[in-house]
Amino acid sequence: MARKNAFYAQSGGVSAVINASACGVLQTARQHSEEIGKVYAGRNGIIGALTEDLIDTSVESDAAIAALKHTPGAAFGSCRYKLRSIHEHRAQYERLIEVFRAHDIGFFFYNGGGDSQDTAYKVSQVGAGVAYPLQCVGIPKTVDNDLPITDCSPGFGSMAKYVAISVREAAFDLAAMSPTSTKVFVLEVMGRHAGWTTAACALAAEHEGDAPHILLLPEVAFNEGRFLAQVDEVLKRQGHCVIAVSEGLKGPDGEFLAASGFRDAFGHSQLGGVAPVITGLISAKIGCKCHWAVPDYLQRSARHLASEIDVQHAYAVGRAAVEFAIAGKSAVMPAIRRLSDSPYRWDIIEAPLSEVANQEKMLPADFIRADGFGITAAARRYLAPLIVGEAYPPFTRNGLPDYVKLRNAAAPKKLTSEFAV
Amino acid sequence: MARKNAFYAQSGGVSAVINASACGVLQTARQHSEEIGKVYAGRNGIIGALTEDLIDTSVESDAAIAALKHTPGAAFGSCRYKLRSIHEHRAQYERLIEVFRAHDIGFFFYNGGGDSQDTAYKVSQVGAGVAYPLQCVGIPKTVDNDLPITDCSPGFGSMAKYVAISVREAAFDLAAMSPTSTKVFVLEVMGRHAGWTTAACALAAEHEGDAPHILLLPEVAFNEGRFLAQVDEVLKRQGHCVIAVSEGLKGPDGEFLAASGFRDAFGHSQLGGVAPVITGLISAKIGCKCHWAVPDYLQRSARHLASEIDVQHAYAVGRAAVEFAIAGKSAVMPAIRRLSDSPYRWDIIEAPLSEVANQEKMLPADFIRADGFGITAAARRYLAPLIVGEAYPPFTRNGLPDYVKLRNAAAPKKLTSEFAV
Repeated sequence: MARKNAFYAQSGGVSAVINASACGVLQTARQHSEEIGKVYAGRNGIIGALTEDLIDTSVESDAAIAALKHTPGAAFGSCRYKLRSIHEHRAQYERLIEVFRAHDIGFFFYNGGGDSQDTAYKVSQVGAGVAYPLQCVGIPKTVDNDLPITDCSPGFGSMAKYVAISVREAAFDLAAMSPTSTKVFVLEVMGRHAGWTTAACALAAEHEGDAPHILLLPEVAFNEGRFLAQVDEVLKRQGHCVIAVSEGLKGPDGEFLAASGFRDAFGHSQLGGVAPVITGLISAKIGCKCHWAVPDYLQRSARHLASEIDVQHAYAVGRAAVEFAIAGKSAVMPAIRRLSDSPYRWDIIEAPLSEVANQEKMLPADFIRADGFGITAAARRYLAPLIVGEAYPPFTRNGLPDYVKLRNAAAPKKLTSEFAV
Repeated sequence: MARKNAFYAQSGGVSAVINASACGVLQTARQHSEEIGKVYAGRNGIIGALTEDLIDTSVESDAAIAALKHTPGAAFGSCRYKLRSIHEHRAQYERLIEVFRAHDIGFFFYNGGGDSQDTAYKVSQVGAGVAYPLQCVGIPKTVDNDLPITDCSPGFGSMAKYVAISVREAAFDLAAMSPTSTKVFVLEVMGRHAGWTTAACALAAEHEGDAPHILLLPEVAFNEGRFLAQVDEVLKRQGHCVIAVSEGLKGPDGEFLAASGFRDAFGHSQLGGVAPVITGLISAKIGCKCHWAVPDYLQRSARHLASEIDVQHAYAVGRAAVEFAIAGKSAVMPAIRRLSDSPYRWDIIEAPLSEVANQEKMLPADFIRADGFGITAAARRYLAPLIVGEAYPPFTRNGLPDYVKLRNAAAPKKLTSEFAV
């Protein structure tokens, strides 16, 4: 097989460990210099391919590439940009092939969630259609944990660890304050459609009575009366109440609670923030002092608190993607397969992109407790291994995590045509 | 000197390291068993003394006491309860002396902020007034960093480290997303009156262009026009903008922005949340996508990310308090004295409670940049040493921090009278 260059890009909302996957790709490619020449990264995801804005990763030192493993964000820039149907937008796909051909690119790695796997799948179809030899491999990433086939998605474990630890720490605070002050704490977490992250908050509870006491999952329609009765009961039993709520919580009418008529001081309607809505309700109806938190980006970029197993997963799928491509595979995605819960054992298998693309894996019904306010033992068995182990980044002498910023030098353009995205 | 028992209590909003001060008190007291008998802790602060609800710390193992050093919250419960003037509420102070006398308590340690130092001072006056021998020593604690005399307040350094690291991590996220999606991130931090924590966010920026790009300090009245012009300029220069805002930001009318007419879906007026107000304004006037975060309790209970120097300070003031008391000192508070910025060197001195009580140390004018949106080099020199070093707690095999919950056994009551608080 003649040596070919590779293209790698990051897509969608970023995570604490997507750069660990990049590290896996780049380090493995460097170990296979007979098969892979340069690895070009797309600046801002697939947009970099469309606009021929390619980053030459070969100028980055081995140390800088190694540091990606402990750096959050997306080192080459990400994008929210979905390639649409091949029939209606064929020009986009042909442009990709044109850019790849100009830069002698024979490997395409796309690191993202469901949409990105769909894009990788379509690119593989187009490449085959025009007989351009291209090994297309998707690399799973999503804090939402909603990719199918893979047992979990890299990025989720670290977010799960962050929210579980945040619940535990805030609960120590609340327990100390509740006899004379705040009695309820509400933590709003990400996951608009699936309740994986909300469910992960429950890992903070290891003993009877531990926080969180109530979960509000996006899969369970909010019922004001039942909820307030539950808060009341927890307050009577524990003296305080910790609640984890999904940003995507919906009312019985199917509307997001966070979007229902929230207005700020300037009179602008305000999206987001279901936690203040929930605490407002408790303050009004139960009358106790409440605090709420919305960590937002903090929860998905907290590399300082990454799960060691999540970092291992993220690196492994990056490495496996390169190995799959070198082995001549295409239209596949490395997926994590769970071999046992305890001790936790896993390996990497091959998932066909045709089966991954555009599927959302929701929280299974048997993971949700009968009353809707908690998770089952099955959910706990699934979630527990994903937050195990710490993987601290190095810190500077100033007491800050020592994250890398790459040079991100542009490769010289070879095409004269522009392409508007 | 005859051996006497001691009383220790925690007061006000808690921190990631107030239990490290408790550890310093208890371990030092155990080393001085010839002078100090039992240490009783007040259950829920001074309320435990008033109601004779004393926790017998002597039944706790050495290991449990040692684990306090890495456990957030307030292990014996805190309270928001201020003892008022001696003249009008003399009965409360006499009750304290009655309880102390019944339990042979000769040492009074009160761990908290300005109000608590005021209480400790008044108790020392009342003790002297009735000729009850009592060594009253305050122990500084406040995440708000507003105690006078002491160079900094234990609890602040860890909160400062948490917010600086959160800004850095979220900025990596934002930088990756901004070309095609979110362009502004707003982090709301604690500190209603003084801008110490908002200022500490600036430690995340070590190079030109680094986040945070704009600080909104409570000391500087919010000016909508100047602020929007500043956001616009940062967006043009950087392509994205990270803003740290104090929960206590006020408009030109002196009103809290967070309190000005925010209403939730249920029509309840909603306190708190200046970050959504600021992002709402930017969305409406500049029109770009924004994200906001309010970490609330997370920032003051994040023991997993404590500053090593802060833990050292917290422990040292607890130890020094006991040493001062044994040396016969009263109406004093151990204070941290800075000997040099770089290398950072410090020691502990004695501050008279009469000079500590009810003073608030605001951010000095020469710490605020001329345009009001940042800090000066002097502020950076002051703040930088306070977040140095990591002091990770031990983690369980499950990947969660291994925090201790004490037995908190009640000491038998000796008084027959009740006291209502």
